[in-house]
Amino acid sequence: MQAVMKADRQRVLVAMGSHLTVAEKTSRRDLVTNVDHSNEDYLVERIRELDPQAKVLAEEGRGDHVTSMRGHVWIVDPIDGTMNFVHQRNHFAIMVGYYVDGAPTLGYIYDVVADRLFAGGPVVGVTLNGQPLAAPADLTLSEGLFGASGPLLIANKFQMQRVIAASLGARILGSAGVQIAQVLAGELVGYLSYLRPWDFAAGRVLAETLGLVVTQVDGTPVNMLSSGAVLVATKRAHRAVLALAK
Amino acid sequence: MQAVMKADRQRVLVAMGSHLTVAEKTSRRDLVTNVDHSNEDYLVERIRELDPQAKVLAEEGRGDHVTSMRGHVWIVDPIDGTMNFVHQRNHFAIMVGYYVDGAPTLGYIYDVVADRLFAGGPVVGVTLNGQPLAAPADLTLSEGLFGASGPLLIANKFQMQRVIAASLGARILGSAGVQIAQVLAGELVGYLSYLRPWDFAAGRVLAETLGLVVTQVDGTPVNMLSSGAVLVATKRAHRAVLALAK
Repeated sequence: MQAVMKADRQRVLVAMGSHLTVAEKTSRRDLVTNVDHSNEDYLVERIRELDPQAKVLAEEGRGDHVTSMRGHVWIVDPIDGTMNFVHQRNHFAIMVGYYVDGAPTLGYIYDVVADRLFAGGPVVGVTLNGQPLAAPADLTLSEGLFGASGPLLIANKFQMQRVIAASLGARILGSAGVQIAQVLAGELVGYLSYLRPWDFAAGRVLAETLGLVVTQVDGTPVNMLSSGAVLVATKRAHRAVLALAK
Repeated sequence: MQAVMKADRQRVLVAMGSHLTVAEKTSRRDLVTNVDHSNEDYLVERIRELDPQAKVLAEEGRGDHVTSMRGHVWIVDPIDGTMNFVHQRNHFAIMVGYYVDGAPTLGYIYDVVADRLFAGGPVVGVTLNGQPLAAPADLTLSEGLFGASGPLLIANKFQMQRVIAASLGARILGSAGVQIAQVLAGELVGYLSYLRPWDFAAGRVLAETLGLVVTQVDGTPVNMLSSGAVLVATKRAHRAVLALAK
């Protein structure tokens, strides 16, 4: 699957240099492009070849109608951070997560322009561009930078402003994949945003493999078939955020 | 000077891999490291060789006590985004600006890890890694992403929350150099933050060369010898922000 991700990166870089067809989904801030669609087709096809019996849950609807995590389930985000993809041609990710009977099994986050591929899972460990990635230090909230989303921060949802005040500062990049990758790399002690399953499916596998914690903001388990406010953080930062984020 | 910047990048990447000595300046969020100091020494020495008569205004105080912009003035930020440098080993910049009798003349912003060197000025134009950089499209605020600082956004200083609401969204990276570079590249339509001279000296030269506008948030000219809330934006986004940012 890493080879598929790498081939896919090349496809996306080429497509990014051509004319994009951009459409709004639910609002002017919720975009989809021809590349999201063609890239989802590509990934879903590769997954069907690798694992014909599996179900595929994909953001743009090219996969299956998945109502249970039983068996093999692949969760695909062909372009995470489409707003950045369209307006920055940078700071977006391709993500694939693989679950077996609900168990996080493999995850892939490819920060395309930075050329950082995070890959792995509980059996094989996590690699960054093929090199083993060590677990990030278990820093607490006050010892690190915290990844936020603009709307949550401005609305002060979940006491985000208190969370940021307790941290060393907010960072907002507009892509769950890029920001979860930063938590994996130890660049952020945590990330909190309202996420859909494909936004955090890959990141959950990788994060849990590295000893990070992934839950809803109220501390309850995430559900891979529904959306929620999801917190990805070091163990210590996770505790600190839960205590603040009422 | 581009060769100096490139050599300097290599020095910083090597130093970044060694043990950092970190000290707080005015607060736990205002850091300085041994690399800021050694790198400022390096840049100030190179500038003294190139332009012995010039005055040098440098963040960490290795330069001169500069009280006038008359003659040749170099303004140096050896590591912009020191918090990111320390906690992310990523998303920081080296910046040098050159002014002659107050006129913006040459600017250099090097986003070190991304390996993006923006260089140039009004006579030679602006290059990105040696290739001519076209002026970004003159998009207005509602057509693009806007670069903010966490503290201004949370405190809603200058109506930042209204500014963000009018844009396509906030991006916060924690480095003036990296974010001004994103405005140059057309990845953001503007950036507003409280900045010191070395935070925007290079960016002002490059931005104005590309037809972007750099003023204080009240629309008055920036002063290269004092700090202020500085807005770097496309012409149209600049007008839109000034109308909102009371």
